Amino acid sequence: MMRPILGRCAARCAPRCAPLGATARPASRVLLGTSTWRPTRQYSIKAEAAESSKPQGLDASKLTVEKTTKPKPLKKAEELVFGQAFTDHMLSVEWNKDAGWLAPKITPYQNLSLDPASSVFHYAFECFEGMKAYKDKAGQIRLFRPDRNMERLNKSAARIALPNFDPSTLLDLIAELVKLDSRFIPEQRGYSLYLRPTMIGTQKTLGVGAPGSALLYVIASPVGPYYPTGFKAISLEATDYAVRAWPGGVGDKKLGANYAPCIVPQREAMSRGFQQNLWLFGDEQFVTEVGTMNMFVALRNKDTGANELLTAPLDGTILEGVTRDSVLALAREKLVPEGWNIVERKYTMQELSDAADEGRFLEAFGSGTAAIVSPVRSISWKGKLVDCGLKPHEESGELATKMKGWIEARQYGDEEHEWSYTC
Amino acid sequence: MMRPILGRCAARCAPRCAPLGATARPASRVLLGTSTWRPTRQYSIKAEAAESSKPQGLDASKLTVEKTTKPKPLKKAEELVFGQAFTDHMLSVEWNKDAGWLAPKITPYQNLSLDPASSVFHYAFECFEGMKAYKDKAGQIRLFRPDRNMERLNKSAARIALPNFDPSTLLDLIAELVKLDSRFIPEQRGYSLYLRPTMIGTQKTLGVGAPGSALLYVIASPVGPYYPTGFKAISLEATDYAVRAWPGGVGDKKLGANYAPCIVPQREAMSRGFQQNLWLFGDEQFVTEVGTMNMFVALRNKDTGANELLTAPLDGTILEGVTRDSVLALAREKLVPEGWNIVERKYTMQELSDAADEGRFLEAFGSGTAAIVSPVRSISWKGKLVDCGLKPHEESGELATKMKGWIEARQYGDEEHEWSYTC
Repeated sequence: MMRPILGRCAARCAPRCAPLGATARPASRVLLGTSTWRPTRQYSIKAEAAESSKPQGLDASKLTVEKTTKPKPLKKAEELVFGQAFTDHMLSVEWNKDAGWLAPKITPYQNLSLDPASSVFHYAFECFEGMKAYKDKAGQIRLFRPDRNMERLNKSAARIALPNFDPSTLLDLIAELVKLDSRFIPEQRGYSLYLRPTMIGTQKTLGVGAPGSALLYVIASPVGPYYPTGFKAISLEATDYAVRAWPGGVGDKKLGANYAPCIVPQREAMSRGFQQNLWLFGDEQFVTEVGTMNMFVALRNKDTGANELLTAPLDGTILEGVTRDSVLALAREKLVPEGWNIVERKYTMQELSDAADEGRFLEAFGSGTAAIVSPVRSISWKGKLVDCGLKPHEESGELATKMKGWIEARQYGDEEHEWSYTC
Repeated sequence: MMRPILGRCAARCAPRCAPLGATARPASRVLLGTSTWRPTRQYSIKAEAAESSKPQGLDASKLTVEKTTKPKPLKKAEELVFGQAFTDHMLSVEWNKDAGWLAPKITPYQNLSLDPASSVFHYAFECFEGMKAYKDKAGQIRLFRPDRNMERLNKSAARIALPNFDPSTLLDLIAELVKLDSRFIPEQRGYSLYLRPTMIGTQKTLGVGAPGSALLYVIASPVGPYYPTGFKAISLEATDYAVRAWPGGVGDKKLGANYAPCIVPQREAMSRGFQQNLWLFGDEQFVTEVGTMNMFVALRNKDTGANELLTAPLDGTILEGVTRDSVLALAREKLVPEGWNIVERKYTMQELSDAADEGRFLEAFGSGTAAIVSPVRSISWKGKLVDCGLKPHEESGELATKMKGWIEARQYGDEEHEWSYTC
């Protein structure tokens, strides 16, 4: 075919190019979003996953398992570094728009062989999840709220035109991988097997458009606790010279695209002695999230004197953290009866600075899969250090310590709870 | 090592995790950018390319060439589809932070073999360029302003902590690839060899940080003209429900991260009969750029009656197009003497709508490497179609037609010019 057919060209056109033109006069349409972010603008993306013409759903019954002939030696627990060593096997499932999902495979952990024109290398067709498998006291394997990860991966994939899958089927497949590699799950408290479901676009043409093929794969890495000797408080640099996410963008999805652009600011912050960026947004200097965590602050309300646990709302610029959601649920369950208010609203660095100056800043912590909660000592902002309420000898506030315990009790199955999924 | 050493953890920490904390109290610093975007905010990223401890620069003298034993048959010119078929060979150079750039290799075009944990798959460590090689009437190979592509690739790489390279050395290496595969450069006017320099992060660990290793590679695809039978005007959907780029973001860099998030809106626009999105920004509905092109409009000034060629300024949200720059330079050279004003400033959809209503909208076109210029017939905005000035039987305005001719004369060497680089 000499030229792409009309309509197809725009979906496959070169970056910085012009697609083949249509001469037909398009019908006019009103283009208004439905969700609100701020009063004056409306943003709304109808993310739509790629569709197969003959959709073959993800089918766990077609799973094939090829076991490794060279099992890796287990590392000592104290040698584990996050995401550096992987288990013996991986799960992978190919997809293409004609056939849908092909038969899932568990194979020895191995390199991917991809055409250099594959869309994942050029246009960041990639999304992922982070989740963990734990061993409880009885040796039983448990996942923590894995349904949330499956749901979020589908949302991330749909936002970049990658295919969706049946969540419970992928969860079944992941459980098979985890059971096969269960010897890699450390038994000690605080240790776990980090799981990394990943989906990439594999179409091997340079046209900019929805990939016609994709690969979903899951790799696993045994990891230790972030704090083997207890919490270590971190300090943050409030960052306004660069912006992580924006309304109408993709900051709420777990896309590769959200990460690479944050590394130079992260290095900048580290060069000044801060462990992470605290991303601000807008002229108001709204606090959004930490480099790789959601952000929580505990303040005493200026007017009522009541304790408040505060975090930014899910307005499309904040990653929908599973740990964030867990912290909120546990806070509502356990702190509200003690008189706390749990508040999801926009808040500013000025508010935090005022609270610190007035002795109302109780504590702050980040939340994420790897560290659960990470206490924050101070935030650098406008040339001063905002003190987040820890005493000099403390590495964690009371709330962060309690929250970590509550979550771990459900992760390790000490407390039977619907959040804990038994493999 | 049990835990990452202090300071290293933050650069290698898990997404949604907490890094190991520092207990030292960091020094406070004032954090103000130096460039201005709008009056009330300042954004400035000091992009810094990755540095080797023993930096070994890119060295063309170390090039090795392994020729294919299975040369591909040439496709007929009329069968060429953008970015679908590639030449016999590819150029690749590995980098790591200990050794710097390794010896460049030209090899048969082949798959990349990468660990599934490679950072390119998870965190979008990837940037690229688009450029073309042409054959002139004497059969000589020419590149068009390739120094601009080399410079931009270095800027893109630095923004995501990938390594930089000596621009003229990479250009020499690309010239070697092009000469080796010169039989793939079509001889016909309007045809060329599209070149895709690409850099990806290859560190095979899941920590979020600057990749310690990378791969630079170049592949090449013979392509035809976008308009073998003359221009075809396209129609655009002005898009405000999603936002391509933001001040303080990375919209001015050629990163993979800027592409995948735009595909669902592109599909939406196509479903309504428009070939591309015209990305708007802010409450003012500023016109920024087309899906894969920079945007130019020609208007008659309301007050002075003078003709103006208008495009958005390089404010950090606009891709710094080589064709955009060429259009501006040629317009200043050839249109200003005819009384045109060439203006880089922010402009709004309302301005365009008013100009259309008042008969002052002369024409509009996108600019990009693949199509050079792409005439625009109409823009859908707020439920109406803004007419861009073409007569019903016209597929291109006078200015777009002239501009295409001026640029092609320098691309194909009809006019000897410093923009044309002879291999």
